Amino acid sequence: MRVEEAMHRPIGEAAEAIRAGELSPVGLTAAYLDRIAAKDGDLNAFVHVAADALDQAESLAAAAREGRILGPLHGIPLAIKDNYLTADMPTRAGTEATIEFPRTEGAAVRKLREAGAILLGKTRMHEFAWGMETPPARNPFDPDRVPGGSSGGSGVAVTAGFAMAALGSDTGGSIRIPASLCGTVGIKPTFGRIGRSGIVPHSWSLDHAGPLTRSVADAALLVDVLSGHDPDDAGSADEPPTALHPIVPSAREAGAAGLRVGVCRNHFFEALDDEVGAAVEATISRLAAGGAEVVEFRVPELAYGLGAIFAIELASSTAYHVHHLAAGRTSAYRDDVRLLVEMGRLVTASDYLQAERYRTMLAEKFLRVFAGVDVVVGPTMPITAWLSGQREVELDGRRESVLETSWRFTYPWNLLGLPAISLPCGYDRNGLPIGFQIAGAAFDEASVIRAAAVVERTVQMRWCF
Amino acid sequence: MRVEEAMHRPIGEAAEAIRAGELSPVGLTAAYLDRIAAKDGDLNAFVHVAADALDQAESLAAAAREGRILGPLHGIPLAIKDNYLTADMPTRAGTEATIEFPRTEGAAVRKLREAGAILLGKTRMHEFAWGMETPPARNPFDPDRVPGGSSGGSGVAVTAGFAMAALGSDTGGSIRIPASLCGTVGIKPTFGRIGRSGIVPHSWSLDHAGPLTRSVADAALLVDVLSGHDPDDAGSADEPPTALHPIVPSAREAGAAGLRVGVCRNHFFEALDDEVGAAVEATISRLAAGGAEVVEFRVPELAYGLGAIFAIELASSTAYHVHHLAAGRTSAYRDDVRLLVEMGRLVTASDYLQAERYRTMLAEKFLRVFAGVDVVVGPTMPITAWLSGQREVELDGRRESVLETSWRFTYPWNLLGLPAISLPCGYDRNGLPIGFQIAGAAFDEASVIRAAAVVERTVQMRWCF
Repeated sequence: MRVEEAMHRPIGEAAEAIRAGELSPVGLTAAYLDRIAAKDGDLNAFVHVAADALDQAESLAAAAREGRILGPLHGIPLAIKDNYLTADMPTRAGTEATIEFPRTEGAAVRKLREAGAILLGKTRMHEFAWGMETPPARNPFDPDRVPGGSSGGSGVAVTAGFAMAALGSDTGGSIRIPASLCGTVGIKPTFGRIGRSGIVPHSWSLDHAGPLTRSVADAALLVDVLSGHDPDDAGSADEPPTALHPIVPSAREAGAAGLRVGVCRNHFFEALDDEVGAAVEATISRLAAGGAEVVEFRVPELAYGLGAIFAIELASSTAYHVHHLAAGRTSAYRDDVRLLVEMGRLVTASDYLQAERYRTMLAEKFLRVFAGVDVVVGPTMPITAWLSGQREVELDGRRESVLETSWRFTYPWNLLGLPAISLPCGYDRNGLPIGFQIAGAAFDEASVIRAAAVVERTVQMRWCF
Repeated sequence: MRVEEAMHRPIGEAAEAIRAGELSPVGLTAAYLDRIAAKDGDLNAFVHVAADALDQAESLAAAAREGRILGPLHGIPLAIKDNYLTADMPTRAGTEATIEFPRTEGAAVRKLREAGAILLGKTRMHEFAWGMETPPARNPFDPDRVPGGSSGGSGVAVTAGFAMAALGSDTGGSIRIPASLCGTVGIKPTFGRIGRSGIVPHSWSLDHAGPLTRSVADAALLVDVLSGHDPDDAGSADEPPTALHPIVPSAREAGAAGLRVGVCRNHFFEALDDEVGAAVEATISRLAAGGAEVVEFRVPELAYGLGAIFAIELASSTAYHVHHLAAGRTSAYRDDVRLLVEMGRLVTASDYLQAERYRTMLAEKFLRVFAGVDVVVGPTMPITAWLSGQREVELDGRRESVLETSWRFTYPWNLLGLPAISLPCGYDRNGLPIGFQIAGAAFDEASVIRAAAVVERTVQMRWCF
């Protein structure tokens, strides 16, 4: 398998070629490093490129020649969001403040290494995972536009062909938003599914780890590698790792027949761009034409979600930053992030508990929803990538900040802790990707992956490499 | 069986006599009502006596004559703490404020009725379950002393022979504290074991329901009746009801042999009255002499527990009372309770989350403790019943408020949500009961009941009737 071909094939096929001696991890890694060197000066996806990437590749190549295959990612070059602590690379979590992050590694990075992955470097993120823009990273589809955030660098890296896949983290949409704006697949599995030890916390009860990838099959493979109980994460579920990768081919073959597809017509379809709406409706129609049973419903209580997630996220973030606040280190934070961390001090415990009560009530509503459907689908975001510096957008005659717009459809799945994927379902008149979101019941990533594989079949994804 | 004898026998035996036609629920109920009429003018255990108690008894007597036995409490007269909503009796939750509590019933009261219990009335509690004194209730062992709280009326009712048992609720010790001071058995099973629907909330994540009884067998029987999943309580565990009652006779027979008894020498044995300490040590020695393996250990992190439970309890209580605060209804609260509810507004969400993080850390410590022992034992409280109006106590040369003293040994099991029982292990020079506390691993009430049955065998309990 030629290196250039491998960069466009699913990870599973590239890994198979490496195992068979038909593809060299060294050549593959060199090609990614070349492309980073050539293009990332403009796109700013990486904050750190591993000096030893080729050494990792040489060592894994030697092992492969001796028949020692570490795991399903043997020789596969990946990128990691810069809030995953790494022993061999610095971690800054997007901040310029003088905070020393430990040189240790948690469950996710360990699992990648054990599976044989090559860690190419650390991707840029919005400071402390608080924000949807990730400056100065640029969207490869249009460098004047944002890549989204907070895992913006990971979205850029995948779309620009800087890595076969990248890890992100998602507190209110931080994997799915850059996936949507950069036209990649991005999945946030069920809360507790992937261990978060060794990830700089943003908001304990909302944070999820997950990958951004070029395909649904790659997303499934990476969740299989990353999932499983993490004793060092108090939120980790005591569940065995998933086995999603094997179901992708059969799901593509089986198509939509028998799939119960829920469409929540309030909240998730309010105030969105016409082209986004049209692409999403066309995708739903294709699912229905393919035999899916489309079930429309409403959950009026979603109207109160924003206040709830904001109270929880502000409070948790400030609880993490409280020592930095006390020590005055927050003065070095970006203005937007410093403001949020300071605002978090004003959330009372009583507010916080009311938000948690709302969350419990909403979870009960969706428990009933998922008794009747396998997945709930809709747009990932109301809009496509906005111009850097743009502050507002007008939708349905109402002006709204782009930051508020961007997470409206993603944050409910963080409040609920339910698995959700974003994948492209079309491109707007400017050629910008439109994200389609598919959510499932707790620990039912299988239905999410199945539905995503069916949707993916009908989309010709575009890459910027 | 004569009524006077039934009042001193275990509930199971009285219920058996009723089933066999050898004891009349009417005679039994009349005897309790007579005793309440004669004595409760002084002791103030009840805030409401059911006008239809004899009607309930007549109806259950008729059913029994026809062979229709509702359940294991058929014809057994019980009392209920006044924070359990009841359809046929008013609920005040200890407050004089003009708050209308719904005339509905939750899981616990429904289960009592379904099991055939006679509800004699509602017992006095410290306002909104915030406090350890329950004025103007008096301790039957010495009417100048407090019965403890917040389930003080339930403790008085059991000890004074006003009911065969009584329900209480326990947020930081509110079942075990009156059990200890009034010399009854009192158990708070694992968090989530008994459904709390229909109980006026104090602090959602700390509140537990449970009974105060005259014996370990009665405690086991009542937990068996009350336990099981409650769909209307978000904290309820999806566990089947317990089957503890049948293990009591065999546990008494088997004795202490093989029981692994943990003794946490820090926190739970600090700054306590000499007579309390001596009675507890003697009890531990008897367990060791009986073949128990006594394991001493320390958990230094317990030193930070008070701040954590106080932050959580204040915050949750205020989240419940926030509408009453806004409406000015708290001006009618007792001064001590109003102050606490107002203080709760000052707890920040960040403080709250730090407290919850501490709680998670402490839970992990005790998970390891319970891998090595079946139960952890110690004094229920550092002191015996104090004089009404007494504000402070001196222990180990340090003055401390009696309120702070009283819950020092009980609140850790609320933070941890682990099952804990109190039963008398002796009496001090004034004849006041000394409580012995036995805690267990999550959902292992069986070990708690087993150990309590062994301890009970060595104690001659005293009653005030």
